[in-house]
Amino acid sequence: MSLSPALRLLLVSNSTVAGRGYLDHVAEAVKAFLSDRVKRVLFVPYALADRGGYAAKARQRFEALGYGLDSIHDAADPKAAVLAAEAVFVGGGNTWRLLKALYDHDVLDALKSRAEAGMPYIGSSAGSGIAAPTIRTTNDMPICEPPTFRALSLVPFQLNLHYLDPHPKNEHMGETREERLLQYLEEWPEPVAGLREGSWLDIANGIVTLRGFPGARVFRRGGAPVEVEPDTELNDVLGL
Amino acid sequence: MSLSPALRLLLVSNSTVAGRGYLDHVAEAVKAFLSDRVKRVLFVPYALADRGGYAAKARQRFEALGYGLDSIHDAADPKAAVLAAEAVFVGGGNTWRLLKALYDHDVLDALKSRAEAGMPYIGSSAGSGIAAPTIRTTNDMPICEPPTFRALSLVPFQLNLHYLDPHPKNEHMGETREERLLQYLEEWPEPVAGLREGSWLDIANGIVTLRGFPGARVFRRGGAPVEVEPDTELNDVLGL
Repeated sequence: MSLSPALRLLLVSNSTVAGRGYLDHVAEAVKAFLSDRVKRVLFVPYALADRGGYAAKARQRFEALGYGLDSIHDAADPKAAVLAAEAVFVGGGNTWRLLKALYDHDVLDALKSRAEAGMPYIGSSAGSGIAAPTIRTTNDMPICEPPTFRALSLVPFQLNLHYLDPHPKNEHMGETREERLLQYLEEWPEPVAGLREGSWLDIANGIVTLRGFPGARVFRRGGAPVEVEPDTELNDVLGL
Repeated sequence: MSLSPALRLLLVSNSTVAGRGYLDHVAEAVKAFLSDRVKRVLFVPYALADRGGYAAKARQRFEALGYGLDSIHDAADPKAAVLAAEAVFVGGGNTWRLLKALYDHDVLDALKSRAEAGMPYIGSSAGSGIAAPTIRTTNDMPICEPPTFRALSLVPFQLNLHYLDPHPKNEHMGETREERLLQYLEEWPEPVAGLREGSWLDIANGIVTLRGFPGARVFRRGGAPVEVEPDTELNDVLGL
């Protein structure tokens, strides 16, 4: 497997870390990623029920960074909006609701082809998860039923966002995140990058780099999970 | 909505509570539920990958309670096994894997018709969740893709097993269980019974009774969540 060198993805585990404001922990990374070549960003708010409120929040944040923001839910033709976008930001929320809406509005293929052609793509949480081949490693409750679990397949590995280590004193008997991801590997071969809150992947020139603070945990079939430190290339551990 | 008085369901949140053995906390409830009229139980191990190991564990536990146990994965004709069963126990694991296997082996309708005719049905975790209309309130990772999210619809409300209260000191930003269930209610009208670990529903004579220790939390559209104490009838709060 290899990554197209044209891809430019910023896949953020979560939009807000404890004690900070919306997208604060990735503000500098977003500016560096979009640079001043991008003037306006197309926002995809489909993962939340209140699209208008979500778009207002995202607009305020991106304008503070120096970018204009249009929301796809305001577009008369959502597919045309994707095809014309300079860059896209897909916000977090419920992954099932997001993927169903992308199919319902027939924008999945357009989003995929634009990202594969090099349009900068920023995702947060659910918006990052859909860059994987499928949503089979989501944490979200399946409140909506998309026609299939297949997603954008921009990268050939799976993502688990808000990755959470088991608490040593926890007496809860539900599966830990690690146990759930090992169940995934019982069924499917793709490696899974578990991104702890505060971390993100920066993908450019065919290189996947882990950024942010707490590191990531990568799960692969037939091997023990691998801890990855921030500011490390993940291509080898992901088999790319 | 009302429940058929013929239904006899024991829907357990989880098979093992901290510090105790497999099914220990419901051992007396299982014996009272099955009584000595039942001699053998049909076990459904589809929610775990290791069906043989799972069946051996369940057999040992049920034999200690005085019941024989046959596993559906050993049956040449799984559907015929369901149609001939005195009682069924559907074990926990991954809800998606379980539901897909029930469709793949064409036993869902048989299980539904037998349970509706009064065959005693015991579920644990995933095995309880599939008694609801859909699996849209599962916590599990969607590692398998069933043809639809529709499940047994033995009861007209949804179940959330291993229900977990938010931890007051938690800085994790992923949605709490309550937030996820409120997202469900943004999309769908059915109430949801959130069963904390250690609790179960005993359903007979058209009455839903909460048993076990830590109580449950019921979520309904357009109202605040309702706390329910153990040994309480839930029909009113579930709108039955």
